[in-house]
Amino acid sequence: MSEHPLKPATRAQLEKVSVATLATALYKRGLRSQVIQNVHPLSQKGRNMVGPAFTLRYMPAREDRNQLVEFRNPKHPQRVAVEECPQGHVMVMDSRKCANSASAGDILVSRLMMRGVAGVVTDGGFRDAMNIAQLDIPAYHQRPSSPTNLTSNEAIEINVPIGCGDAPVFPGDILVGDDDSIIVIPAHLADEVAEEATQMTAYEDFVLSRVAAGASIIGLYPATDEKNLIAFEAWLSQQNAKVPAE
Amino acid sequence: MSEHPLKPATRAQLEKVSVATLATALYKRGLRSQVIQNVHPLSQKGRNMVGPAFTLRYMPAREDRNQLVEFRNPKHPQRVAVEECPQGHVMVMDSRKCANSASAGDILVSRLMMRGVAGVVTDGGFRDAMNIAQLDIPAYHQRPSSPTNLTSNEAIEINVPIGCGDAPVFPGDILVGDDDSIIVIPAHLADEVAEEATQMTAYEDFVLSRVAAGASIIGLYPATDEKNLIAFEAWLSQQNAKVPAE
Amino acid sequence: MSEHPLKPATRAQLEKVSVATLATALYKRGLRSQVIQNVHPLSQKGRNMVGPAFTLRYMPAREDRNQLVEFRNPKHPQRVAVEECPQGHVMVMDSRKCANSASAGDILVSRLMMRGVAGVVTDGGFRDAMNIAQLDIPAYHQRPSSPTNLTSNEAIEINVPIGCGDAPVFPGDILVGDDDSIIVIPAHLADEVAEEATQMTAYEDFVLSRVAAGASIIGLYPATDEKNLIAFEAWLSQQNAKVPAE
Amino acid sequence: MSEHPLKPATRAQLEKVSVATLATALYKRGLRSQVIQNVHPLSQKGRNMVGPAFTLRYMPAREDRNQLVEFRNPKHPQRVAVEECPQGHVMVMDSRKCANSASAGDILVSRLMMRGVAGVVTDGGFRDAMNIAQLDIPAYHQRPSSPTNLTSNEAIEINVPIGCGDAPVFPGDILVGDDDSIIVIPAHLADEVAEEATQMTAYEDFVLSRVAAGASIIGLYPATDEKNLIAFEAWLSQQNAKVPAE
Amino acid sequence: MSEHPLKPATRAQLEKVSVATLATALYKRGLRSQVIQNVHPLSQKGRNMVGPAFTLRYMPAREDRNQLVEFRNPKHPQRVAVEECPQGHVMVMDSRKCANSASAGDILVSRLMMRGVAGVVTDGGFRDAMNIAQLDIPAYHQRPSSPTNLTSNEAIEINVPIGCGDAPVFPGDILVGDDDSIIVIPAHLADEVAEEATQMTAYEDFVLSRVAAGASIIGLYPATDEKNLIAFEAWLSQQNAKVPAE
Amino acid sequence: MSEHPLKPATRAQLEKVSVATLATALYKRGLRSQVIQNVHPLSQKGRNMVGPAFTLRYMPAREDRNQLVEFRNPKHPQRVAVEECPQGHVMVMDSRKCANSASAGDILVSRLMMRGVAGVVTDGGFRDAMNIAQLDIPAYHQRPSSPTNLTSNEAIEINVPIGCGDAPVFPGDILVGDDDSIIVIPAHLADEVAEEATQMTAYEDFVLSRVAAGASIIGLYPATDEKNLIAFEAWLSQQNAKVPAE
Repeated sequence: MSEHPLKPATRAQLEKVSVATLATALYKRGLRSQVIQNVHPLSQKGRNMVGPAFTLRYMPAREDRNQLVEFRNPKHPQRVAVEECPQGHVMVMDSRKCANSASAGDILVSRLMMRGVAGVVTDGGFRDAMNIAQLDIPAYHQRPSSPTNLTSNEAIEINVPIGCGDAPVFPGDILVGDDDSIIVIPAHLADEVAEEATQMTAYEDFVLSRVAAGASIIGLYPATDEKNLIAFEAWLSQQNAKVPAE
Repeated sequence: MSEHPLKPATRAQLEKVSVATLATALYKRGLRSQVIQNVHPLSQKGRNMVGPAFTLRYMPAREDRNQLVEFRNPKHPQRVAVEECPQGHVMVMDSRKCANSASAGDILVSRLMMRGVAGVVTDGGFRDAMNIAQLDIPAYHQRPSSPTNLTSNEAIEINVPIGCGDAPVFPGDILVGDDDSIIVIPAHLADEVAEEATQMTAYEDFVLSRVAAGASIIGLYPATDEKNLIAFEAWLSQQNAKVPAE
Repeated sequence: MSEHPLKPATRAQLEKVSVATLATALYKRGLRSQVIQNVHPLSQKGRNMVGPAFTLRYMPAREDRNQLVEFRNPKHPQRVAVEECPQGHVMVMDSRKCANSASAGDILVSRLMMRGVAGVVTDGGFRDAMNIAQLDIPAYHQRPSSPTNLTSNEAIEINVPIGCGDAPVFPGDILVGDDDSIIVIPAHLADEVAEEATQMTAYEDFVLSRVAAGASIIGLYPATDEKNLIAFEAWLSQQNAKVPAE
Repeated sequence: MSEHPLKPATRAQLEKVSVATLATALYKRGLRSQVIQNVHPLSQKGRNMVGPAFTLRYMPAREDRNQLVEFRNPKHPQRVAVEECPQGHVMVMDSRKCANSASAGDILVSRLMMRGVAGVVTDGGFRDAMNIAQLDIPAYHQRPSSPTNLTSNEAIEINVPIGCGDAPVFPGDILVGDDDSIIVIPAHLADEVAEEATQMTAYEDFVLSRVAAGASIIGLYPATDEKNLIAFEAWLSQQNAKVPAE
Repeated sequence: MSEHPLKPATRAQLEKVSVATLATALYKRGLRSQVIQNVHPLSQKGRNMVGPAFTLRYMPAREDRNQLVEFRNPKHPQRVAVEECPQGHVMVMDSRKCANSASAGDILVSRLMMRGVAGVVTDGGFRDAMNIAQLDIPAYHQRPSSPTNLTSNEAIEINVPIGCGDAPVFPGDILVGDDDSIIVIPAHLADEVAEEATQMTAYEDFVLSRVAAGASIIGLYPATDEKNLIAFEAWLSQQNAKVPAE
Repeated sequence: MSEHPLKPATRAQLEKVSVATLATALYKRGLRSQVIQNVHPLSQKGRNMVGPAFTLRYMPAREDRNQLVEFRNPKHPQRVAVEECPQGHVMVMDSRKCANSASAGDILVSRLMMRGVAGVVTDGGFRDAMNIAQLDIPAYHQRPSSPTNLTSNEAIEINVPIGCGDAPVFPGDILVGDDDSIIVIPAHLADEVAEEATQMTAYEDFVLSRVAAGASIIGLYPATDEKNLIAFEAWLSQQNAKVPAE
């Protein structure tokens, strides 16, 4: 268990902010490489993927260790990972950015969905991607890839620190994915970054409303002109007034 | 004519299985590189592309041999290939994985469609891709590419063995494309692979139904627990009972 | 102001021809590298993007010059470019083909839209791409990219000659983008190329109608058989007859 | 300790055969991906590097964990690995094929040399490569790279299975490097492969002598003409006669 | 036999000019893509490689067709090509720019040398590169590559038009290689280009002598200032005077 | 003229430290991207290249603007840059990392040498590289490239901020190149970084001497064990004693 388990309130906040906003919040803290590169959603889900990372590491396949019979082994790390990834977590695979063979297919991803896993990510590719796109679980990859993973990758370690799309991922780090991409938030920063991004999002929404009304961005974004901060406070009160108490 | 023409029954089977399943069937036979890499459908057709390969090979263009006037030559290999690709075949182009210029455009692909060609594939790109996507013929490429092929490629040979997306393609090999990608089945293996993939697909459908019902994949996929094979037989009988005799 | 401002009649013509056709027209003139490579529309707009280029050049970011505070500078070239790009122009960014960080996001692109800019292009990536795709302004990039541009790029010069996707772009050159890609027409050639492409498009439409009716492409495309030119003239008269005078 | 420690006789044989010959011996056994790709020696040593693999795995660096102060930690995995790599072993680093920053520099490699390590390999790059090339220890990399490894890589695990230049490397596998490249021999195959390669090398030397004398390769390489095998035996006796008993 | 066999006088001229100068001479004729990209000599020979192209085309390997036993076939295209490449010609291989396995090794290249072949070129890599570098035959490749070519390439056609390093190569085209790279001269242009390059080289030698004496390049290179042409003529007479009549 | 001209004492210090050491000194200051990537010296000069940057920017070539006749223009930016680059400066070219055509050749580089320029750098390639390697001026590139630069690049701006090998270069920044690579030191940091690197180098020399004597790196590199600092001071006094006063 992570020292910094994901709080429900933080999860709720992270569901409502964009990866871009989170990237800026981490940038302020000197973290510049937390967005997973070259990985995108198989289908738009209309909601963010949020959850702590549960990792699987692949290494290059050696032919004698990667015949189809290997999958008959109930301890095969890929199959074990699928059965052990905790509910609400995101399974993240370091496929060495190699999409020449699959990281997983629709059967394994269906199983993850049934087990309540929050999402699945690889910097390689999924087979049966056309089917996975229809499942009720967010999935992210580089491109569809039909060959079995045995062709070029061997699952070798579960829940160790990995790279995914050149981003560092430690087990328990909080992953947030939107329709554009995915970011890796170090677990100990999740609460403060979620809070900050929530506030940034409010201001960005205000900015968008002003820009849509014809305002210039100079002085507005960022708010170097104090008047804009005052107008934002007014707008915010108005917005909050619109939302009935739950 | 290939020594191993595609039988209608085999074609029918190949229309109903996925490239992923076929890739596994070939993997069992030691063939690991038969999926065309980095090539995807311009639009989802809701059906597989199936047909024997008819090939066209491109080489790098030399400027003095590739002025627009060349297309006035009725023997230009690209135009000849479009007129000679047999009905029911798939036209496959070795564009040297170069998508900086087009392998073909909507006029040639329309002509292929009218001629009853089963599909068209390039490891480069199509121009007028937005229009080709609307045509009633499956088309696969790397990415849209508007410049005329003369810019970087010269069509040089028809129906010789080629590479396409790093996969070997011999004239007469059977190509199968789904919404994810394309696989090249050596002609002499088509019948047995189609049969095996059909059976594998039945089992995978069973597995998906069990996973959707909450089953673990251990012992089920692959079927190392005998009980699952028995349950599969039962499920299969039930499925077949559902299908009225034609 | 360009020596060759875009005439309304030329703009109207360019809105109705494809990038592929324009690429062929430029190819005839010895220009082979004018299509921006590896850049595609965020969403299909059902209309061409047309306008003179207004450029922004990025260089690699040096960390001490690219902290978030830089955006507070009202003279920051990226923000200035967004406020100064003339109405009806296309803002084109040389992001060094680097999509590891964003060239711009939805707020800046919204502002460009409000200012009447004709489109926005980068050979890097946009953040908030999912939102930009919904805006009423054509936008083209390589792939979504959530990190702030400060991460790897610094906006350094406005309206100088640049490269974009390996194509040369001079301020004032006419950009035309369709659902496939974008081409850069040297400003002094815009009128003649628009006219020629319009005529080529008419002939291509005729060819497509003939191919759809079962005609072979030999002799038809290109029109080496004189009969086809005669048939084209007849078809053209018929087409024109169909269009009521405006 | 490996279950298959490297025998002195096997080491002696591996010092006298080429990576090319070993690659063919492994190819016969179905192993096609054991040569480390895109990695070459910093300088020619005139002798093979031979030894069991001791591995170090890098992951992408996260800025807050990779400040210079980290090196003050006596448990830093990179430094620990340098002090613990056993004598006669080869230190192999999985640097994710990223040569934008260094995997190590001349001080660490000097220390490895002093400790009797048999060689050092990375699929990234060395800093101070010009100095390392002069040291009396074989070193292999992709290209020189001056930035400290903290810039993009964090040493995270010692002596786990890794990928290096797309080849699978398990701790204890036998690495052999010549002036061209490096091969990874699974530990349990080392003896038989060394023996077979030694015999192949004898025949190849014979072939080279025949080719130098004007012979055709047909029937000679491989020896499909029995006469060549007989001639080889004669040549071999002659060669052995030349070598005085030790 | 080419319609344009290489004349001894042309060969003699081509031995004394650089690829750079030849590239400029072809550029004047509209040929911009004749230099083989990303291929370099294994060792500097101190003389140009010159000869007509004899080609070998590789395609991606299919495992069942590329077991070691294939080399026992006396008709294997790679072995046949090595025995049939005419004396004085250059053997050029289209290895699909793939250097993951070898295009040939020291035995085959030794045989080519013994047969009087003028050089050997691949856009992949050679195995035993360290030995090939020592042979008395110019050899060019991308990088050393130890695995047998069967691993990823199958030799499929002899003496057809190919691409090599993105340059078009037709059988009989004249290849010239220096210590930097290789250029492909269309056979019918060889005489005039050799002559022109010889004259250009004389002027460039003059320019170098002037620059070495402190002259500015403006007006000198190219010779826009007439005085430089006059000085060149004088220098040339002087140079010729230095060379005793043969 | 730069606000921070290079002081002779700083130059002298920079001539004696490695790029690796300088990279670490800049890393301490938060600058992680100052080493030019994928660029290496044409030949080892046995001394560092040091000098302020004078820049030239290339853009993609448009064919009508890049015929050979362009070089007859005495204002052609490439030729002007060669004549104007100040003595003691380093000419740095942003060739868009494109080595398909040359950034310059031996005539221009000879002229730079004669004019007393301190070095020449491109992230593309040089033609006549074999000759440039022999000149008495340090030159760095990606790989040899024989085609004239007109083929793919047009020189467009002199002495503006550029990227070179993904590093940011501002005119006047101090470039230091050794046998491995090149680093770009922001002009205002040159003095302090040179001083710090000089001290670091002294300690590294001490460390190397200790390692050569069998010392462990733990506690020594970095100096976490105080005893090593004391030993360093002693060693340093001894070293200084060895050097006779000049």
